[in-house]
Amino acid sequence: MTPDALRTIIIESVTPSIDDGRFPIKREAGDTVRVEADIFKEGHDLLCAVVLFRPKGASAWSESPMKHVDNDRWAGAFITHDIGRWEYTIEAWTDLYGSWLEGLLKKHVAGEHVLSELLEGLRLVRAAMTRAPAAEARRIEQFDRRWSTASTEDEQIAVARDPELVALLEAHPDRSRSSFHGRILEVVVDPLVARFGSWYEMFPRSQGKVPGRGATLRECEERLPEIREMGFDVLYMPPVHPIGRTNRKGKNNAVVAQPGDPGSPYAIGSEEGGHFAVEPSLGTLDDFDHFVRACSDHGMQVAMDFAIQCSPDHPWVREHPEWFFKRPDGTIKYAENPPKKYQDIYPLDFTCDAWESLWQEQLRIVEFWASHGVKIFRVDNPHTKPLRFWQWLIDRAKEKHPELIFFAEAFTRPKMMKVLGKAGYSQSYTYFTWRNTKHELTEYLTELTRTEMKEFYRGNFFTNTPDILPFFLQTGGRPAFKIRAVLAATLCSNWGIYNGFELCENRALPGREEYADSEKYELKVWDWDRPGNIKPLIRTLNLARKNNPALQEYDNLEFYWADHEDIIVYGKSTPDLSNIVVAVVNLNPFQIRETLVHIPPHKLGVGDGEHYTVHDLISGERWGWRGHSNYVRLDPHLDPAHLFVIERNR
Amino acid sequence: MTPDALRTIIIESVTPSIDDGRFPIKREAGDTVRVEADIFKEGHDLLCAVVLFRPKGASAWSESPMKHVDNDRWAGAFITHDIGRWEYTIEAWTDLYGSWLEGLLKKHVAGEHVLSELLEGLRLVRAAMTRAPAAEARRIEQFDRRWSTASTEDEQIAVARDPELVALLEAHPDRSRSSFHGRILEVVVDPLVARFGSWYEMFPRSQGKVPGRGATLRECEERLPEIREMGFDVLYMPPVHPIGRTNRKGKNNAVVAQPGDPGSPYAIGSEEGGHFAVEPSLGTLDDFDHFVRACSDHGMQVAMDFAIQCSPDHPWVREHPEWFFKRPDGTIKYAENPPKKYQDIYPLDFTCDAWESLWQEQLRIVEFWASHGVKIFRVDNPHTKPLRFWQWLIDRAKEKHPELIFFAEAFTRPKMMKVLGKAGYSQSYTYFTWRNTKHELTEYLTELTRTEMKEFYRGNFFTNTPDILPFFLQTGGRPAFKIRAVLAATLCSNWGIYNGFELCENRALPGREEYADSEKYELKVWDWDRPGNIKPLIRTLNLARKNNPALQEYDNLEFYWADHEDIIVYGKSTPDLSNIVVAVVNLNPFQIRETLVHIPPHKLGVGDGEHYTVHDLISGERWGWRGHSNYVRLDPHLDPAHLFVIERNR
Repeated sequence: MTPDALRTIIIESVTPSIDDGRFPIKREAGDTVRVEADIFKEGHDLLCAVVLFRPKGASAWSESPMKHVDNDRWAGAFITHDIGRWEYTIEAWTDLYGSWLEGLLKKHVAGEHVLSELLEGLRLVRAAMTRAPAAEARRIEQFDRRWSTASTEDEQIAVARDPELVALLEAHPDRSRSSFHGRILEVVVDPLVARFGSWYEMFPRSQGKVPGRGATLRECEERLPEIREMGFDVLYMPPVHPIGRTNRKGKNNAVVAQPGDPGSPYAIGSEEGGHFAVEPSLGTLDDFDHFVRACSDHGMQVAMDFAIQCSPDHPWVREHPEWFFKRPDGTIKYAENPPKKYQDIYPLDFTCDAWESLWQEQLRIVEFWASHGVKIFRVDNPHTKPLRFWQWLIDRAKEKHPELIFFAEAFTRPKMMKVLGKAGYSQSYTYFTWRNTKHELTEYLTELTRTEMKEFYRGNFFTNTPDILPFFLQTGGRPAFKIRAVLAATLCSNWGIYNGFELCENRALPGREEYADSEKYELKVWDWDRPGNIKPLIRTLNLARKNNPALQEYDNLEFYWADHEDIIVYGKSTPDLSNIVVAVVNLNPFQIRETLVHIPPHKLGVGDGEHYTVHDLISGERWGWRGHSNYVRLDPHLDPAHLFVIERNR
Repeated sequence: MTPDALRTIIIESVTPSIDDGRFPIKREAGDTVRVEADIFKEGHDLLCAVVLFRPKGASAWSESPMKHVDNDRWAGAFITHDIGRWEYTIEAWTDLYGSWLEGLLKKHVAGEHVLSELLEGLRLVRAAMTRAPAAEARRIEQFDRRWSTASTEDEQIAVARDPELVALLEAHPDRSRSSFHGRILEVVVDPLVARFGSWYEMFPRSQGKVPGRGATLRECEERLPEIREMGFDVLYMPPVHPIGRTNRKGKNNAVVAQPGDPGSPYAIGSEEGGHFAVEPSLGTLDDFDHFVRACSDHGMQVAMDFAIQCSPDHPWVREHPEWFFKRPDGTIKYAENPPKKYQDIYPLDFTCDAWESLWQEQLRIVEFWASHGVKIFRVDNPHTKPLRFWQWLIDRAKEKHPELIFFAEAFTRPKMMKVLGKAGYSQSYTYFTWRNTKHELTEYLTELTRTEMKEFYRGNFFTNTPDILPFFLQTGGRPAFKIRAVLAATLCSNWGIYNGFELCENRALPGREEYADSEKYELKVWDWDRPGNIKPLIRTLNLARKNNPALQEYDNLEFYWADHEDIIVYGKSTPDLSNIVVAVVNLNPFQIRETLVHIPPHKLGVGDGEHYTVHDLISGERWGWRGHSNYVRLDPHLDPAHLFVIERNR
């Protein structure tokens, strides 16, 4: 065993590597991991380096060559074929033969005698023979014989530099003194839907047609064709568990419910059960299974809400009082964020003495619903529970079910948002909802898609949620809804809407970003085809996403210049430029804007003076463009955006 | 023991921390380490955090409080009183009482009853009593009694928020569930001379007055008063060991020496001895000791050259042939960098089978000379030896002699330069010698002093070396020497010249940055007072450095704007602005330049419209300045620079 002291190659500044390997990076099945590192050693030797990679648990490493880029920076890549955990690291060794040959040729060119050097080279050749498999060893032996019997220095040098011999020796190097990156780094490889998904959030009890009665899951199924027709592939529902009665909230979050008020589905648990049960007014567990199958039949996956909190009527309150926070008098504390009070909800104490049984129970919940076909969990308020708990839960759950997706619903300070991604969340909500100007969007998207964040944080751009009706939508009317739909669907490979968005529903509580008469607290019946809806645009956007691979990538976003402050321009391309999409959006929902937009032609794969065609997937129109600068005009009351596919004439 | 799962505070992005703690940072005795980290946890609790620090090997940690800065970033600091290794890390815990009190007061303000909450608070007070030492516990007990006997909520709240009680509880928190940064980070604390030193490199055999005979160390002593008078405090000499005879190089690096040629001192070793011996023509080991004492008597330290390589006559060649590279015929290989050959030098094979005895021998050399009063080693070509060797050698040497300084003579690719600093070199040569324009200097100095490099890489700005006579000095005449002296002495807290610089010696080999008739290969006699010398300027610069603490810091450099491309302006200040130095340098050695320079008055501690005085330490003149923009005119043939001390009128 070679002592470390003799492994003298330096391997440092390895990327990607989140907090020096404390956290895994993320990829999807079939994705590529490009690995870079500074690799160098003392003196002048030539080096070789490889990325070592394997599915975690495999005994043998695969390897992929690294090449020198510049300034001692090397790069290589590997493909994560399957979902699950993968590992990677770097090995580097001295290219003894290559270094020797380089020195030899320099001396030879300088007219020196190299007899002694040739003897050294021959020794390297013979050593390689012992390392190579039989067939190649025989080939090397033939070179050895030619070399040994060559009568002049020039002839020997000709053998020494024979490309076949060089390749044979490169293929069987002496790696006994290799250096290794001191860390084994990890990749979590998720199904494609972790990166590319179009989400529709539906409030199940509001999907029916009978006023005063909540819809059942069976009735919800009737909406599936329409939702699928809009192009969505993930169907997400707030909690479907029994809703508590004690301290139930009334309409518009009233402290006291009126008879008939259904209560917030986030007050989980009643005498009908807790996190393992289905709210009876929605149906039975069988109905739930039926619903999951129905979604699947329509090409959609179900995303379940995972909100770890209890109504005072939750079975845990009786069975596991040790899991809750207590008052000095021994009663259980309800949730609060002083002076706000949530009397219908008991939070759990994740660091109580009985934390292990509490944590295990949460894992049981995930595994229970996974066994009922749920592969996506949208997790409510993860930032109020310990990070270590999530890390533990997600790691354990994905050991058994590597296909699971966890989506973090945290809207909190930036570092907590990020660390939830590091700790294992497959996707995260973002600040997109509050980024409206060109500057805000450019800055935020650059952070998300161009910094280290892209390695561990997959944003999912929701236009709205049951808790967030942004002021921009409240005030900008139908054009605002269109603008935000285009932005969410094309800036980010994951996007979603909460039902009502497609209807341009924008009635808010005064001065707040909350819905008036929110269906969180009352029964509703919607006309899903009501006039003014933007379902055709949404269908167009989702179709464009489906047909254009460029829109299915997360970190390929590039911003371009537009003269007008209100016009934002950005593009996404596949690496080979075979598919290029450029979006031009008027961010002003009130005013017609016209401007020049400036896109360097080479970004579109066209020559400087070359003509090309932009095909607008929204209007269906085509225009001839040329050169760096072209004119656009966008009327928000017609179409506030172009979504161009670039068509080159060759 | 609290399980890690319950230690839920996140501590990340700790700075300074080089490669996640793989390498130590550097400081000097009495210096400050400012430690920052992102510190946060789930939910809304208030947190407390401290920097833990101790001399390495001490059993107990000291601690220093951290404060929240912004956006979950915290900062604290500690002082490294003594030289040697120090350790630091971070601990954070939940401020249970503070969090409780905050919630209580919010509810109280909202007019709620808080009886139950007050009981919780009292429980926290009583728990603190058990942790506090007797005297404080009694004080807490008195609060407990007042609290328990208070008859109204308001009275109880008044006790609960009593600043003395709050302080007592803050002083004795429950840290049983503290979170810790997972790494213990290290600081190498060096003597001040590691950061602040003025170096004079002398070629000992050229210090005499007798043509055709090399000076002895005793004769060298005669120059010490003059060198000290120039203000230098480190005296550095190329190797003083016996010089080999086999393949000795002649004048101007001729392959064959003529009789009487003294040879390069880097061809170390003869029958008179190797790295443990003194070249007989310089004197004896006793003479060396005498010289070291003489330097010390003049307030100077000796820096010794440590060049690990051998002439063919070195004792190791006979005694340890196993340490060298061999040809196939068993003979030892000389150094080469094809097609260049160094026939007078045998390199050592640091990864030979006998590497351990070879490494140990190098440590013995360092320890031998350390025992002869040498505390500074200037290491020749460290980038051609394995980094792990240096890390081992420097760590071992400094374990016994923490006062040792190692100065890396590497002029190679940037990442190797940096990693030598990380691995333990106290100081490093830099690219300063080739940075001449305002842009080049600004960019390079910003990298050195404003990025993470400042934590581990201490540049030492040499104007020239026996191997480097930059083109700027070759062509710019005496003004060029003045310009480079001012830049080196004021941009960097460590600077040095190689003898002859003060004489503006600029004769080069044609087309190369090497001295003509270099004293590396021949005996010389200099007139140290020859006309045109710039010794007065050098004395002025070193005096300015001695009298102005701002010039003794490494990382306090700030650049300011000057309209003219050829004028560079920068300042250094003490943190309290009690000492502020501003340099204005005309980088053009040929042309008079005048320009406006723009310095924000607050950087100088003066108000916007305030008058202040700039006192030029070079010319001795004073000018009244005011506001943001002031005029300068610099004639390179007189003084190419101002070195202003700012004098405020209050």
